Amino acid sequence: MINIGIVGYGNMGRGTKKAVEKNKDMKLLAIFTRRPEQVKAQVSDVPVFHNDKAFLLPLRNQINVMILCGGSKKDVPIQGPEFAEYFSTVDGFDTHADIPAYFQKMNAIAKKEGNVCIISTGWDPGIFSMERILGDAFLPGNKSYTFWGKGVSQGHSDAVRKVEGVLDARQYTIPVEEMIQRVRAGETPDFSKREMHKRLVYVVAEEEADEEKIKREIIEMPKYFDEYDTEVVFINKKEMEKNHSAYPHGGFVMTSGMTGDNNKQILEYQCQLESNPEFTASVLVACARAAFRMKEKGHNGAFTLLDIPLGLLSPHSNEVLRSKFM
Amino acid sequence: MINIGIVGYGNMGRGTKKAVEKNKDMKLLAIFTRRPEQVKAQVSDVPVFHNDKAFLLPLRNQINVMILCGGSKKDVPIQGPEFAEYFSTVDGFDTHADIPAYFQKMNAIAKKEGNVCIISTGWDPGIFSMERILGDAFLPGNKSYTFWGKGVSQGHSDAVRKVEGVLDARQYTIPVEEMIQRVRAGETPDFSKREMHKRLVYVVAEEEADEEKIKREIIEMPKYFDEYDTEVVFINKKEMEKNHSAYPHGGFVMTSGMTGDNNKQILEYQCQLESNPEFTASVLVACARAAFRMKEKGHNGAFTLLDIPLGLLSPHSNEVLRSKFM
Repeated sequence: MINIGIVGYGNMGRGTKKAVEKNKDMKLLAIFTRRPEQVKAQVSDVPVFHNDKAFLLPLRNQINVMILCGGSKKDVPIQGPEFAEYFSTVDGFDTHADIPAYFQKMNAIAKKEGNVCIISTGWDPGIFSMERILGDAFLPGNKSYTFWGKGVSQGHSDAVRKVEGVLDARQYTIPVEEMIQRVRAGETPDFSKREMHKRLVYVVAEEEADEEKIKREIIEMPKYFDEYDTEVVFINKKEMEKNHSAYPHGGFVMTSGMTGDNNKQILEYQCQLESNPEFTASVLVACARAAFRMKEKGHNGAFTLLDIPLGLLSPHSNEVLRSKFM
Repeated sequence: MINIGIVGYGNMGRGTKKAVEKNKDMKLLAIFTRRPEQVKAQVSDVPVFHNDKAFLLPLRNQINVMILCGGSKKDVPIQGPEFAEYFSTVDGFDTHADIPAYFQKMNAIAKKEGNVCIISTGWDPGIFSMERILGDAFLPGNKSYTFWGKGVSQGHSDAVRKVEGVLDARQYTIPVEEMIQRVRAGETPDFSKREMHKRLVYVVAEEEADEEKIKREIIEMPKYFDEYDTEVVFINKKEMEKNHSAYPHGGFVMTSGMTGDNNKQILEYQCQLESNPEFTASVLVACARAAFRMKEKGHNGAFTLLDIPLGLLSPHSNEVLRSKFM
């Protein structure tokens, strides 16, 4: 049995609880949060503690892997190093540009304390990173494309919510189907950002708000929207709750290359996710199994999905994998 | 520089030579074959030797990894153990049912001699195996589907060539597009073999042959064709040469599962290959890089793609992978 702790109980924490319950070799021992009273009101079958309690004995020694489910902006950069001192951890740190620095920090602590910390896992970064690296390794001189969506971008939704007069917002990133078809058909164009993705924004505005002004402010917002074709749709609060409370996402990694005498080879990975946080959580939970096994074997340090033999993610033995899955 | 040797110079050996040439950290040192005079007539830029010469010094010590490019039926099961005694090796042994036994044999020799032998790599077994295992690890209780094609099946083509009156044959396995669409749309049916794949056979018959009899014999052939819808098309020798001398292939691995409260998650990997042997060779060559690095680190034994951290396949350092590919 692998004893799991969850740190943070938002969408991803809830997804992680459900994912652990689906894996027979794991047990959820406790949930840690900054707001234990609120979480206790939602969870009755697992003990809920304040984060600080995680570091006290005997609990500290009972947990094999801590899954860090907080946000990548404010939570994980602080909690990662704190927890790595006492626990093997798994996180989905997804600020791509900061991964190398975060890796260094986690690696130093995990090596010193003898823990295994798997960072930046999930589907992107995570599975998509793996697929990009495989495509590149197999097809030198390739062109690689990553398309995202259709799905909700949390960062873009947050940015819209900051516009004056906006009460709530949901931003969908939509890959341009025609461009995916072109790559599938063997073309290797240099796409602009605008050509690859569209943005669709649902906005609940204040009653008196100037919708034209809000729309303009969104469409012209630097980096977030100005380089894309963006559609803004105003809806009411009820519609927002009814139609936009799920968090679907997905995407495509495509690698197009040549071998030998101009033979075209096209690799494509895609996922269609009805719940982004639940699928991300499922990847984190499989990585917790790998972290546990690696620690048992005496490894320590920080790792990404690139550093882990994939068999370690599976509930099955290597013998079963070789006979049933190869 | 990683010094490579190739054993066997059929389609896959030729693909491997081309793939090695595309990787700047590798050098093809020699080609070994049972028919050196014939291969010498095709290859002028690399030394060609009889297989037996591989085991003689100083050549033996100059080669870091031997890539075994012979057939899975007769060549690799014998050559694998022979070469594993003296070399780290990579092969594409693809008789799925025999992989566990072949692994045991190779593992024992490689461990004893301190070599790293990566077996059964390519796209299926190989990448497809990985994708099946990942899908299963991330989505417990999933349904998994592997579709192959459109592509030439060597085994089925050979079987048809044995029918009386057949001079040459090419068998294409064709996935039934409608079924792929159903899985993509979220359905999880139990397909029969007939529902998933069709078979299309091009035959060059002897002049006096009874085409109806040949057709019937093919369509009713146990295991190979009787469980599928098969179309047989008679063509002449020229058409065969002109239209069927490439070896395209490809396929799909799809994993369909649920997380949490009935949220559907669908993962799909697909490859479209204009040249099956060249792409397979490209995977073998990337695995040769991993074998070299693992041996340098002191590992030994037999491995499959499930046992190898994927970063080892890449020409880039882990630092570059973390900063550019994650």
